[in-house]
Amino acid sequence: MYRIPNHIGIIPDGNRRWAQNKNMPKEAGYSYGLEPGIALYRLCRELGVKELTFYGFTQDNTKRPSVQTEAFKKACIDAVKMLEKEDADLLVIGNYNSPMFPKELLPYLSRKTIGEGKMKVNFLVNYGWQWDLNSALKALSNGEKRDILDLISSKDISRIDLIIRWGGRRRLSGFLPVQSIYSDFYVIDDYWPDFKPQHLYEALEWYSKQDITLGG
Amino acid sequence: MYRIPNHIGIIPDGNRRWAQNKNMPKEAGYSYGLEPGIALYRLCRELGVKELTFYGFTQDNTKRPSVQTEAFKKACIDAVKMLEKEDADLLVIGNYNSPMFPKELLPYLSRKTIGEGKMKVNFLVNYGWQWDLNSALKALSNGEKRDILDLISSKDISRIDLIIRWGGRRRLSGFLPVQSIYSDFYVIDDYWPDFKPQHLYEALEWYSKQDITLGG
Repeated sequence: MYRIPNHIGIIPDGNRRWAQNKNMPKEAGYSYGLEPGIALYRLCRELGVKELTFYGFTQDNTKRPSVQTEAFKKACIDAVKMLEKEDADLLVIGNYNSPMFPKELLPYLSRKTIGEGKMKVNFLVNYGWQWDLNSALKALSNGEKRDILDLISSKDISRIDLIIRWGGRRRLSGFLPVQSIYSDFYVIDDYWPDFKPQHLYEALEWYSKQDITLGG
Repeated sequence: MYRIPNHIGIIPDGNRRWAQNKNMPKEAGYSYGLEPGIALYRLCRELGVKELTFYGFTQDNTKRPSVQTEAFKKACIDAVKMLEKEDADLLVIGNYNSPMFPKELLPYLSRKTIGEGKMKVNFLVNYGWQWDLNSALKALSNGEKRDILDLISSKDISRIDLIIRWGGRRRLSGFLPVQSIYSDFYVIDDYWPDFKPQHLYEALEWYSKQDITLGG
């Protein structure tokens, strides 16, 4: 039996390296990340995970060649279309005042229940950690709240217990700095399109052995 | 030859578990972390590291029993005393409006050159990530700057390239959320008092193989 985290963050990295290994152009990798995403979502729902946050793409990622940015934008739109056939309380977070933000996802800037809901799913699209934190400074002028947690753009996303990153890199790459303060961080060397359920079980097994102290 | 990071963050965890393994009371572990700290500082200086940040203790840590909080406060004071015999540009960052902040360290709230300087050393003492970020909200009322990077309490600490954590835990525990956005994160299973130079070389060897993209 695993101790199931309330909230899992997913960094699905390695799509481009996966495509190159298959002699495909880099940008071809993103579409192969869609089925793994739905498979992971379903597994987590069955296990009773309450909240799941996927790293779509960041503002820093949009500095890449446009053939790549178009491909990962399309993958995000397609991911949401696939999710629309499932059950989820879906929220999309990211800088929507930009042509990089797909207009198809605008309806999800406030949380929407799809099907029977059941699990919160957050999707970071054109997200920037600096944008997120700076929004607290902008929000301040309009109110009296003085806690960053109440003012950031991602305030509706809760603290993350476990972050799983595919593709071998051991860094957060700006993934929700406030919510990831105490997250346990598990890295899988395989690239994201090679996702298999065993990866999740392996991460949960490791997480079950961690001592959660929150600094105490 | 290693690629030497400009800035290394150090999370010297495992002091209490180390002491327990030696049949000592938990709080006895902290003083055994002092010599390793100086040894690591000297190694980094020789290697040409430009900036080194040590995690002393956090506001969350101060929820522990007072025999422990007194022990880690003393260790921080002693660490600075030892460093005063070396060369460093020393800065202490933390919530100083609290009895948990040792008054002996007040002079270092602005950066001071010790000896010939040579390397920036930052020491987080009674640090809190929330305190750090919220200070940006307070600072805002007094000025027009609108970027979180210019307003946080730790604004004089630069982006961290490599974070090394001892004691096996794979989490940041609130370590400078803004500066650690793109940090590569290396975990050593040994407890901090068992530090040996090989740990640092191992981390640098791993870091040398990482592809630094900053999201691009």
